[in-house]
Amino acid sequence: MFTLSITQQIARITIDRGEKRNAVPMAEWANLERLVRAANISEAVMVVIDSADPASFCAGSDLSELTQLCHDPLKRRKFRGAMESVLGRVRAINKPSIALVSGGCFGTGLSLAAACDLRIARSDASFAITPARFGISYPKDDVSRIMQLVGPGNAARLMYGCETITGTEAYRMGLVEIVDDSAELGREMLDRISLSSPSSLNDLKATMAGRWGVNNRFDAAFGSKDFTTGIESYKRDKSHAKISQG
Amino acid sequence: MFTLSITQQIARITIDRGEKRNAVPMAEWANLERLVRAANISEAVMVVIDSADPASFCAGSDLSELTQLCHDPLKRRKFRGAMESVLGRVRAINKPSIALVSGGCFGTGLSLAAACDLRIARSDASFAITPARFGISYPKDDVSRIMQLVGPGNAARLMYGCETITGTEAYRMGLVEIVDDSAELGREMLDRISLSSPSSLNDLKATMAGRWGVNNRFDAAFGSKDFTTGIESYKRDKSHAKISQG
Amino acid sequence: MFTLSITQQIARITIDRGEKRNAVPMAEWANLERLVRAANISEAVMVVIDSADPASFCAGSDLSELTQLCHDPLKRRKFRGAMESVLGRVRAINKPSIALVSGGCFGTGLSLAAACDLRIARSDASFAITPARFGISYPKDDVSRIMQLVGPGNAARLMYGCETITGTEAYRMGLVEIVDDSAELGREMLDRISLSSPSSLNDLKATMAGRWGVNNRFDAAFGSKDFTTGIESYKRDKSHAKISQG
Repeated sequence: MFTLSITQQIARITIDRGEKRNAVPMAEWANLERLVRAANISEAVMVVIDSADPASFCAGSDLSELTQLCHDPLKRRKFRGAMESVLGRVRAINKPSIALVSGGCFGTGLSLAAACDLRIARSDASFAITPARFGISYPKDDVSRIMQLVGPGNAARLMYGCETITGTEAYRMGLVEIVDDSAELGREMLDRISLSSPSSLNDLKATMAGRWGVNNRFDAAFGSKDFTTGIESYKRDKSHAKISQG
Repeated sequence: MFTLSITQQIARITIDRGEKRNAVPMAEWANLERLVRAANISEAVMVVIDSADPASFCAGSDLSELTQLCHDPLKRRKFRGAMESVLGRVRAINKPSIALVSGGCFGTGLSLAAACDLRIARSDASFAITPARFGISYPKDDVSRIMQLVGPGNAARLMYGCETITGTEAYRMGLVEIVDDSAELGREMLDRISLSSPSSLNDLKATMAGRWGVNNRFDAAFGSKDFTTGIESYKRDKSHAKISQG
Repeated sequence: MFTLSITQQIARITIDRGEKRNAVPMAEWANLERLVRAANISEAVMVVIDSADPASFCAGSDLSELTQLCHDPLKRRKFRGAMESVLGRVRAINKPSIALVSGGCFGTGLSLAAACDLRIARSDASFAITPARFGISYPKDDVSRIMQLVGPGNAARLMYGCETITGTEAYRMGLVEIVDDSAELGREMLDRISLSSPSSLNDLKATMAGRWGVNNRFDAAFGSKDFTTGIESYKRDKSHAKISQG
């Protein structure tokens, strides 16, 4: 139900199980993790997670299957471990990661989007976190990440009341950074990122993730080919600008 | 000046000293704390803090009384301790806590609302943090909590300039999660929370509060009666939905 | 290119190199730091950083000069150290610090504004973080501060895509706390802060900065002259209010 396609710019993981609203069976998390690893080590500049069906980004875990956990404590631990593992892997991607959200984005689907660096959504996309409707809870790391994005109050609002909010409201509260209703979801931003230096993007990602040694990487970048090229093209543009102004 | 009423769903603490804009005399903080403890150990699913007077949520500490502190350092320490204790108790509630804010919400009144998980306010409610107008400061934990909700910049804006903002502006900056101008303040959201599983709500609260062992609670919930019931009613609803669609 | 003027209320540091969009040559950071230190120990109540040219707050580091760093690793370390030092000094100011942003605010210029407690901007000001266009990165502390203001998602949006946003959009995402298009940028808020007690402002700043001993300072303030004066004038205003109402 997951496919990976890689171009020079984009490693794209597409969720494709529209007939089940892109709900993820337990056994599939490991497959997603495999693709995330492959995307991370690919030559592509960024990793995009999207859906083949505009009606659903991802409905989260396949609820119909979870009854297996009622009487099997060991399986619960494995289930949680599988989700923790794939989401941890998404957060560990060493390049920009972007979720393109069209349609429903629920539960672990929302955790998946929240584990990316950036969320671009249709204004009529739907977001909800509903474990409290089913007598269950939500993993610690996912809650932390959502609190970082929307603050503790909005996290409580979403999780206690289980309401469904639109892309527009998700944008207002910080769960989504860009609302995009143009023909091709996310295209403008992905094109913008493509204009950035891949090594800069990796350094910036490492810096945001609080990784070790980023100040040394900051210094080292001034010795890079990307900097020489970047600064030369900047100077050229500036002189062009002067001519066109003059 | 504080009353507690408990139903199966809601433990409701009501501030009732409208003639003094619900300002709290020093000696009353201990009474509020007693009610918060009782609300916390009650059978109710959630704790609500509201006001009997729509013109005032809570004006904070009773300023006319604070002149007693000018020449009595020991009393200052006791005063701060009483506030720290009650606000710490509010933050330690192990179920959802919701402040319903109508009218003025100032100083320690605002700290009280900020110590709850969720704030629902009238659009014309008034919020301000004004110790700088009186030559005093604001407690460390209260400042931290407000910074978490609105960010360091907006906290500085409120505390340095002492301006009064409306419920609408408080919502924009994240100090309030829901603006509600319907007949009964907060009713819609409280009804929503009532539809959630009480044990889920407790688990989610513990997770947001960063408490210990929440991942074990996450696992255990799959063995709960609430989960069995929740998932069965979900499947039933889904088959109904199919019939109605078919 | 930096000037400092001090009144009883405001220590004002003005950036004045409009012909170069207020871009800062490497050697100038030390001069700015000297002025920040002087502003901090002055009698003024608050520190304001603004620009002499409404078209530019600060374009950041002077890019034309940075080619010197391509083959000189030691100079890179010194360059980063100079910026870290001045921005750390801004963050260590023990009174309110306010950036007044009109026109372009880019790169280290944006870091400078972000290091202040509060940002007041024209709605048509321009903000961007563009190191990724030049093959370089952005310092760790600056990234942390921006993440605190706008959240990790919006920080990624700005740094990956290098887009230029307006003051209005910066306000929406929390990078700016006040949009002000009145005749004199920031005047209303600076006047408001002038009405606050200077010792309160210092205590509140220390509390937001997480400094040591702030609860003792909270207690001590009740023994201050500012509190006695403040509470007396409050009582007087209240009795006036009663008379005028009666």
